[in-house]
Amino acid sequence: MPTLDRQDDVFVLDLGDTENRFHPDWLIAVGAALDEVEKADGPKALVTTATGKFFSNGLDLEWLGANGDKFREYATSVHALFARVLALPLPTVAALQGHTFAAGAMLSLAHDFRVMRADRGFWCLPEVAISIPFTPAMSALIQSRLTPQAAHEAMTTGRRYGGEDARTAGIVDHAAPEDAVLPTAVKIAATLAGNAGDTLGTIKARMYAPALTLLRDGTNPLG
Amino acid sequence: MPTLDRQDDVFVLDLGDTENRFHPDWLIAVGAALDEVEKADGPKALVTTATGKFFSNGLDLEWLGANGDKFREYATSVHALFARVLALPLPTVAALQGHTFAAGAMLSLAHDFRVMRADRGFWCLPEVAISIPFTPAMSALIQSRLTPQAAHEAMTTGRRYGGEDARTAGIVDHAAPEDAVLPTAVKIAATLAGNAGDTLGTIKARMYAPALTLLRDGTNPLG
Amino acid sequence: MPTLDRQDDVFVLDLGDTENRFHPDWLIAVGAALDEVEKADGPKALVTTATGKFFSNGLDLEWLGANGDKFREYATSVHALFARVLALPLPTVAALQGHTFAAGAMLSLAHDFRVMRADRGFWCLPEVAISIPFTPAMSALIQSRLTPQAAHEAMTTGRRYGGEDARTAGIVDHAAPEDAVLPTAVKIAATLAGNAGDTLGTIKARMYAPALTLLRDGTNPLG
Repeated sequence: MPTLDRQDDVFVLDLGDTENRFHPDWLIAVGAALDEVEKADGPKALVTTATGKFFSNGLDLEWLGANGDKFREYATSVHALFARVLALPLPTVAALQGHTFAAGAMLSLAHDFRVMRADRGFWCLPEVAISIPFTPAMSALIQSRLTPQAAHEAMTTGRRYGGEDARTAGIVDHAAPEDAVLPTAVKIAATLAGNAGDTLGTIKARMYAPALTLLRDGTNPLG
Repeated sequence: MPTLDRQDDVFVLDLGDTENRFHPDWLIAVGAALDEVEKADGPKALVTTATGKFFSNGLDLEWLGANGDKFREYATSVHALFARVLALPLPTVAALQGHTFAAGAMLSLAHDFRVMRADRGFWCLPEVAISIPFTPAMSALIQSRLTPQAAHEAMTTGRRYGGEDARTAGIVDHAAPEDAVLPTAVKIAATLAGNAGDTLGTIKARMYAPALTLLRDGTNPLG
Repeated sequence: MPTLDRQDDVFVLDLGDTENRFHPDWLIAVGAALDEVEKADGPKALVTTATGKFFSNGLDLEWLGANGDKFREYATSVHALFARVLALPLPTVAALQGHTFAAGAMLSLAHDFRVMRADRGFWCLPEVAISIPFTPAMSALIQSRLTPQAAHEAMTTGRRYGGEDARTAGIVDHAAPEDAVLPTAVKIAATLAGNAGDTLGTIKARMYAPALTLLRDGTNPLG
């Protein structure tokens, strides 16, 4: 389950040491961690990472299989997490130490910046291959963060990007050796921690207003 | 006139061996070819190319000169072709073996990917020089597929991009020697043919919803 | 104060030899210069530059401090300048010979192209550090001209970009030695002067319709 640690001004959220899929309990735990970060005073920043082979594999398809009647409600809560991270009034960096797939990849895009392991692990939107189209809100999130060329390839082919490929495509900002992923992310976050505050929150809210409106609209999350 | 061929899972649409301008009869023939592609079952993909010096030079200005009263209806039918290709529920690749100008260039942008001949031929939006502004729908199509920097240069200067220039600007995805243009496009299409289906169609329809709405709205095609 | 000069088809607007902040009188003088450019017949283009260490440092915070009750009206007039330059029916090039900050940087983005001095001077959006969030209209202007990755970094971190960094990020189109900045801009402008006219105006108006609508809407300029 997710855990929260603090290194001076930088909160480090570890999403877990499994596939870190978005089980409802996991979503609640991540939300509680973000509550704690938001409550803190003064300079602060967030680094989100995980332990082991996976950053996150996204939606909890096993739980969904057993709770198909709750798909709309579940999609709304996943959208709400994306919106919350996208608009956080503090600097945010995702340290992608392992596989970052599907909704896990979208969660990474909701952060200000991404550092990805260079030699192993993939960033991938496999939706086209598993017959789960992006919701309109997910599409808006992804397209608001990538160039048209990168968004089109990632969303329509399910290409698996290694770290250097992801950096070249502008999907991540830095590719780093395994042991430098987290330190690089923490360093970027620490440098920017002084920007935390309402101005940053307003800047992000205005930049991503169209995506945030869709992500926060629970009336028809599946499109 | 356009002809349709099939190589295993890949349909190859040849736009013709002239300037391949969008005469009303040519539009009907292209539409019939797309009907045949859409009707096919199983894995499939489309490669669009042409024969000779031109991929396509775009609108049939000669026909338009003799039929000026039909410009709105004609623009609506050209927009409809762009919308259809942009939203096709199968992978699409344009193999640009020759000059790709104006509406011909826009048609290339409606495909998922573009492979362009490296050593000869230009990709160009000459509208600013010939006093035909892009319709709002055309503008939306072009801007939905290019970075702001590339769209601005291409649309406001009429720059003629060679293959390598077009690849650097992100207008095309690959530049290739003359005899590799079509094989490269067919190989990409064949690799992706398994993605054909409703999920891909939904993904594209949601990604390009704003451009598709304008392209499909026949009430005021000229803006 | 701003002065206007002409070199054949190219008008050169010099924003001044101070910090060239947007004092109301300065805005009126720039507007009068643009009137003169717009009135000219035939091929024409605009190069905007300045003299000394600064291209422009943006809003006149000193004047604003003494006229806080006029902030809405002032913001509307700044937005109007951005809109006017963004939609000018002639080619425009900004020659960034010195520091280009905040609203000065936004003014540079309203031009078709930017040439920046390579060895000294910064392009910077410091708003996050000085607690002045971008207005929704400013955000729309910036995001309409930059990739999502570049816009996000520039707008949320206040990074100061040197000429080569700005070129790499696609914020400027060319980085040049000090004595080549203005000649390069004039040469680009002269080459494109033949495109001046209504078609170019329509192309730009349609490309940037959403940003222009916000920039021209004086009802709630501060968001």
